Amino acid sequence: MIRIGISGYGNLGKGVEAAVKHNPDVELKVIFTRRNPADITPITKGVKVDSVDNAALYKDEIDVLILCGGSATDLPKQTPHYAAMFNVVDSFDTHANIPEHFSEVDKAAKSGGNIALISCGWDPGMFSIARVYADSVLPGGETYTFWGKGVSQGHSDAIRRVEGVLDARQYTVPVQAALDAVRSGSNPVLTTREKHTRECYVVVKEGADKARIEKEIKEMPNYFADYDTTVNFISQQELDAKHKGIPHGGFVIRSGKTGADNEFDNVIEYSLKLDSNPAFTSSVLVAYARAVARMSKEGKTGCVTVLDIPPAYLSAKSGEELRKSML
Amino acid sequence: MIRIGISGYGNLGKGVEAAVKHNPDVELKVIFTRRNPADITPITKGVKVDSVDNAALYKDEIDVLILCGGSATDLPKQTPHYAAMFNVVDSFDTHANIPEHFSEVDKAAKSGGNIALISCGWDPGMFSIARVYADSVLPGGETYTFWGKGVSQGHSDAIRRVEGVLDARQYTVPVQAALDAVRSGSNPVLTTREKHTRECYVVVKEGADKARIEKEIKEMPNYFADYDTTVNFISQQELDAKHKGIPHGGFVIRSGKTGADNEFDNVIEYSLKLDSNPAFTSSVLVAYARAVARMSKEGKTGCVTVLDIPPAYLSAKSGEELRKSML
Repeated sequence: MIRIGISGYGNLGKGVEAAVKHNPDVELKVIFTRRNPADITPITKGVKVDSVDNAALYKDEIDVLILCGGSATDLPKQTPHYAAMFNVVDSFDTHANIPEHFSEVDKAAKSGGNIALISCGWDPGMFSIARVYADSVLPGGETYTFWGKGVSQGHSDAIRRVEGVLDARQYTVPVQAALDAVRSGSNPVLTTREKHTRECYVVVKEGADKARIEKEIKEMPNYFADYDTTVNFISQQELDAKHKGIPHGGFVIRSGKTGADNEFDNVIEYSLKLDSNPAFTSSVLVAYARAVARMSKEGKTGCVTVLDIPPAYLSAKSGEELRKSML
Repeated sequence: MIRIGISGYGNLGKGVEAAVKHNPDVELKVIFTRRNPADITPITKGVKVDSVDNAALYKDEIDVLILCGGSATDLPKQTPHYAAMFNVVDSFDTHANIPEHFSEVDKAAKSGGNIALISCGWDPGMFSIARVYADSVLPGGETYTFWGKGVSQGHSDAIRRVEGVLDARQYTVPVQAALDAVRSGSNPVLTTREKHTRECYVVVKEGADKARIEKEIKEMPNYFADYDTTVNFISQQELDAKHKGIPHGGFVIRSGKTGADNEFDNVIEYSLKLDSNPAFTSSVLVAYARAVARMSKEGKTGCVTVLDIPPAYLSAKSGEELRKSML
């Protein structure tokens, strides 16, 4: 059995707990929290809950610690901190800061003789894998990533910060015409506006100036100004009834040429359609915790990404079984 | 530079030669043939052509030998033979015999201190990878593989063996309703007939009994009897004009549940749309030759499959560059 710990019991931590149940060779031993441990009741029987301050006491009780904090402020500190004590997996997703995070975590993991997998999940994660395979097996081509239809927490939060807004949900939606153009093999040059639209569902205070709110949202730099954005004002009741889920997904598409005279077109496409973004991300984290446990047993140390891990390491099945039934 | 040899200069061997041109860190050194070497003129300047009997003389001139023979009779003998001398990559695709082939090749490769990658290409190959990742990150679910629309050489050959047939092309076509049912997440149980249809384009001798030929094709056991098959009689001219290509492709789709109460549906889909089956397969073989050269440098020996190789090993880009630009 692979013994798992969770650090952080929000959406992602709860998702990891649920995902463990789908993996008979994995068991959850302990949840670390910054809150009062007595306030947390895990779904799984027999799981300990303890303060993050006591984590070091569990060094010999878990094989892999899954870090379920946020990328903005938690993981840049937590991952190096824990990688010195445990084998760890995180879902650090601030793409621009990955090289720096890798370097910090690598030092910490090597100092502790541990292995640390960073930036696991679906993007970065399964989408990164799809991009690298497609780029490698079809070198003459272009790769496109589309996200959605799905909820962007960051954009939803940005809308909530607008004066007069009570609640909001923002969906990122890939533009069908852009998807079609990419699939046609024409390797189009696409602007930000041509790739995705943004759909907002907004609940406002009674008497709020909707025209001003809509304008503020649509003109918000970085978040909305570069997109075609639609703003729908709805009641809290409707938002709760229709927009409480956290679906997401997307597409990685590469089109490219083969043949002595580039005479053949090819399209490689990988897509995900997820009812719950955190539940799927957690499921990926648990599969990779298995891989990390195996690599640690082989003596591997330091920081790695999903690109460094063979597919077979994720599977509960043996190499023999995989060759027989899945190759 | 990674120095490549090719054994066998048919569709696949020629495809490898073309694919090498898309990979600036790979060069083609020699082509081994069972034919008279003087009868072969490679497209690439400076490439030697020699008899398979002289292969051993090139032991220090190439890093990886790509075996471009057929799975029925060539590769079961050739791969162990060459794996004792060279690092090799083959595209052995008789799924049922992979475990036996693996075992034979493993012995030979280890005896020579070489690494041998078997069953590379897209199925087995990229589709196997898609199946194993999807099965691992979404353990509560079902995986479906669909092939086509594409030309099946085996089925085309089978039609050509029918009395009165001069030429034929057979397309395997996935059934749209089955694809839709799988994508809906309903995890349907699908019969062979429900998953694919077979479309045949047949040229017959003048005066041949078309009704008898159509009946013989449709009732052919293993090949056609279990499918809804359509037979179209056309002229050689039309076949040459419209059906000379070797397109193929297909879909690997997994749908499955996540969440503490299995309350979330998820669909993972990987698909390929290829103008030329052998040209794409060759492109995959060359990317994996790079991986094999790297693993050999690290001292790895014996038989491996695509499931044992990390994605990053296929890429011409460094780990640092991949983390920065593609993760």
